[in-house]
Amino acid sequence: MVHTGACIANLLGQGGSRKYHLTCNWLRYFKNDRDRRDLITCGSAAGVAAAFRAPVGGVLFALEEAASWWRSALLWRTFFTTAVVAVVLRGLIEFCRSGKCGLFGQGGLIMFDLSSTIATYSTPDLIAIIVLGIIGGIFGGLFNFLLDKILRVYSIINERGAPFKILLTITISIVTSMCSYGLPWLAACTPCPADAVEQCPTISRSGNYKNFQCPQGYYNDLASLFFNTNDDAIRNLFSNGTANEFRMSSLFIFFTAIYCLGLVTYGVAVPSGLFIPVILAGATYGRIVGTLLGSISDLDPGLFALLGAASFLGGTMRMTVSVCVILLELTNDLPMLPLVMLVLLISKTIADNFNKGVYDQIVVMKGFPYMEAHAEPYMRHLVAGDVVSGPLITFSGVEKVGNIVHALRITGHNGFPVVDEPPITETPELVGLVTRSHLLVLLNSKNFMKGQVKTSGSFVLRRFGAFDFAKPGSGKGLKIEDLDFTDEEMDMYVDLHPITNTSPYTVVETMSLAKAAILFRELGLRHLLVVPKTPDRPPIVGILTRHDFMPEHIHSLFPNLNPHKYHSASMAG
Amino acid sequence: MVHTGACIANLLGQGGSRKYHLTCNWLRYFKNDRDRRDLITCGSAAGVAAAFRAPVGGVLFALEEAASWWRSALLWRTFFTTAVVAVVLRGLIEFCRSGKCGLFGQGGLIMFDLSSTIATYSTPDLIAIIVLGIIGGIFGGLFNFLLDKILRVYSIINERGAPFKILLTITISIVTSMCSYGLPWLAACTPCPADAVEQCPTISRSGNYKNFQCPQGYYNDLASLFFNTNDDAIRNLFSNGTANEFRMSSLFIFFTAIYCLGLVTYGVAVPSGLFIPVILAGATYGRIVGTLLGSISDLDPGLFALLGAASFLGGTMRMTVSVCVILLELTNDLPMLPLVMLVLLISKTIADNFNKGVYDQIVVMKGFPYMEAHAEPYMRHLVAGDVVSGPLITFSGVEKVGNIVHALRITGHNGFPVVDEPPITETPELVGLVTRSHLLVLLNSKNFMKGQVKTSGSFVLRRFGAFDFAKPGSGKGLKIEDLDFTDEEMDMYVDLHPITNTSPYTVVETMSLAKAAILFRELGLRHLLVVPKTPDRPPIVGILTRHDFMPEHIHSLFPNLNPHKYHSASMAG
Repeated sequence: MVHTGACIANLLGQGGSRKYHLTCNWLRYFKNDRDRRDLITCGSAAGVAAAFRAPVGGVLFALEEAASWWRSALLWRTFFTTAVVAVVLRGLIEFCRSGKCGLFGQGGLIMFDLSSTIATYSTPDLIAIIVLGIIGGIFGGLFNFLLDKILRVYSIINERGAPFKILLTITISIVTSMCSYGLPWLAACTPCPADAVEQCPTISRSGNYKNFQCPQGYYNDLASLFFNTNDDAIRNLFSNGTANEFRMSSLFIFFTAIYCLGLVTYGVAVPSGLFIPVILAGATYGRIVGTLLGSISDLDPGLFALLGAASFLGGTMRMTVSVCVILLELTNDLPMLPLVMLVLLISKTIADNFNKGVYDQIVVMKGFPYMEAHAEPYMRHLVAGDVVSGPLITFSGVEKVGNIVHALRITGHNGFPVVDEPPITETPELVGLVTRSHLLVLLNSKNFMKGQVKTSGSFVLRRFGAFDFAKPGSGKGLKIEDLDFTDEEMDMYVDLHPITNTSPYTVVETMSLAKAAILFRELGLRHLLVVPKTPDRPPIVGILTRHDFMPEHIHSLFPNLNPHKYHSASMAG
Repeated sequence: MVHTGACIANLLGQGGSRKYHLTCNWLRYFKNDRDRRDLITCGSAAGVAAAFRAPVGGVLFALEEAASWWRSALLWRTFFTTAVVAVVLRGLIEFCRSGKCGLFGQGGLIMFDLSSTIATYSTPDLIAIIVLGIIGGIFGGLFNFLLDKILRVYSIINERGAPFKILLTITISIVTSMCSYGLPWLAACTPCPADAVEQCPTISRSGNYKNFQCPQGYYNDLASLFFNTNDDAIRNLFSNGTANEFRMSSLFIFFTAIYCLGLVTYGVAVPSGLFIPVILAGATYGRIVGTLLGSISDLDPGLFALLGAASFLGGTMRMTVSVCVILLELTNDLPMLPLVMLVLLISKTIADNFNKGVYDQIVVMKGFPYMEAHAEPYMRHLVAGDVVSGPLITFSGVEKVGNIVHALRITGHNGFPVVDEPPITETPELVGLVTRSHLLVLLNSKNFMKGQVKTSGSFVLRRFGAFDFAKPGSGKGLKIEDLDFTDEEMDMYVDLHPITNTSPYTVVETMSLAKAAILFRELGLRHLLVVPKTPDRPPIVGILTRHDFMPEHIHSLFPNLNPHKYHSASMAG
């Protein structure tokens, strides 16, 4: 029962992105990279919108964290998606209000409705909040640091095969269960408050004031936190006017347990998120601070819990606007917005001094060739020609089938420059870029010629429809291994002009690498052609791919390059 | 008294951007285009944040409407700005709560606090809301159409000089006053509700239930709308449980008046906005629909007023996420969010069929060379070389002072290609791009040479500091007219290599114009060099500026180009 509420929302969220992946197969318009990328962005927006019932937060999350490019069309599409999610979700909650669907639908569209009338805060309160933000930032940075270490250990374990994966998952489950069941023994029993609105104590059902081995009329506050749904635990921590519901010692134990469990759980082979554990740990931390300051500050510990959650989110996720809006949509506590913004500002600034955001860290750790939006400072001291890696394979405008097949077989390159050479033109001349997938489609049609002559290209229009060159679903495309050619066919020629992209983006070899990287990143390129500075050389120097801009590649070419030295130098210039 | 509340917020908002303009003069870090642009974006975010007390809405407004490029650093900066605005605003409101500051501070951080407990809505309600969205979109599109026409007339009037400007302003003021005072005569008197919380009727102060020529115990509902602050009028229209406060006829008159006054007021020479008139007209429209549907729908007319305001904002501004968040921060009515999103979706979709968003229209009308984020379809059928406009002025790497001065005097160009020619190099070779402002700084130093020899360039490092080449404040830079040269100096040479940008972005002349436009737009370039395809020509074909991508320029070069034909052709391809 513990995770049911969160799981249904999570299932909806994952359905949000998986659903679109499925529809890809029969919707032809999505058969290109850009639209597919947009759909994944929309899917992630829909996921957040559904999981947190925060449609606008979902849009912002997708744009701040998931999307590499910001286009107004993308904004419109994600907004469309989440608006539909919001209306559907609203309808489902309405439908489930009568309790037909388990815990789903509880709490309505706002998960942790606070709607507090904010107490006016004084200067000491503001100082307390700033200190809370600073400590929250430190804890958030520490969380990222530890998570990175743990994930690295896990990835070694997981690589050893499925049995190890399962063993790890089982171990973590057992540890979690032991913590959940064992730790409440440490807490003393608390007498039920006389004015409790809810049933107290509750036994064998979800709810607050868990009895757990206490005599009648008493409850175990730590068990109330552990044996509740995460949603209810967060709601309890956020709640106002319940300053004495939790003991200090219980909050400390719960905070330590949740912080550590959140760290060890994320990397195991179960679909678990970071948001809820971080909010839970942050809220507990905030409530501890609030309880400690109870004598000095007029603010309710529940408000401190909200600010603590914000500080942890700022410290780990490093998102600002989206966390703001998600917290606003979760709690409906608009008057707290300025304080939430202040805390986010402080905790992000503090944590940025230590390390990168948790999602950026994971991307780096997984080894994805993710390009930073800005060029690294040392790139200013290199030129595009420096990092081109050879050997370069080019095709003639009308190329022998055998050469193409050979090139496709021995390399994994996805793009090849096409150069017209005598006798087709007088001097070697760059025609453009041809991609592997288009080459495979052309080869598959086996429309070859005996001689090396340039055709009108009209046969391509006759033979192929617009969607024959469309991007296939992953794992569904043609592979060079699937194609067989006779020796006769291998000696024939094929005209590449009709399928060549004649407007590839190019840079001169003396172009600063930093500027080439910006061009590559901003336009979202796959290949960037490097052309020579002077005309006395072949018309193409090389081809830059994402891999060539990665720091590892550059450092392997220039082992003596010291990024820190260049960093300071460039800051001074 | 009518606009005091709005004006103080507005002043704060304008101060937000003006403040940064002032600080530019002594903060050296802002002496470049990018940081200055970012500051203006932050200023506009701060303005919206202060005017609507909507900090997150301000961030989103700035990013959705004001910023052409989206960078995570920019997000962080605008967030920082609005967070500071929010905290300061919160402090000021706290300070002014006791009534020290006039109407400012009334209503707290949330201007129109609704916090309604939403009634469950049924299918007929949903259909009503969809129809409301459609009609709202049509009205919004019509507003943009009419505003465009009126602004064109106004710009003709305003161009004739200051007296005409003042006359126009006075005329509009008189018309507005006449409407405000004259129209309430048309409305009948309504008896005060027995259970009114506020004083009824009110005489000679701001408030609802205006007496206006009615006998004691009666109020004039139209006067209550006209003679109130706009804020209070909006609050009244949004309010729940007051279904009978306004008569249908009064709402109709008010709607017509506000719609027309909003149209005619925007272009006159006073600082007036579009947001509040549009919200006011939309809320009135929504309330009319709500009152009409009173018998069918369970929803309160106040909720319809909110949705009507959303539909008008969606129809005129064409913003989605930011309007959502601004409305949420204005009304604190989170449960309405799904419906607001739905209405925005519909009204924007409908209005997009008619014309562009109001701000886009104004940019086009003012003739700013604003580039669309996407390339026009007909650009795919042109190449970069087609639109280069001559004559091209290039400099040698070591150029005669007289030639530079002459070129700067006869043209207004801001960038000049530098080409090394024999005897410095064997063949003509493109060095890079030099800007007018850098040339002027170099000329001003009068460090000239007798012969045409290439220097080491070290004198530049010796003679100039990093900030000598910094961008000066507008109107403060060196002008070619300010510089005087003797005949002897005019015959001397100057080495341009040290100040040449050797990594300008280049495209080949056969590059598709559409792709060149995307490169230009995405990287935010000022100049794009066009290089020849074949090496038997001079190393530079031309230089593309923003102007060359404008439809007017392209159409003047290719009068026979029919954008519509290409549009349909490209859609099919």
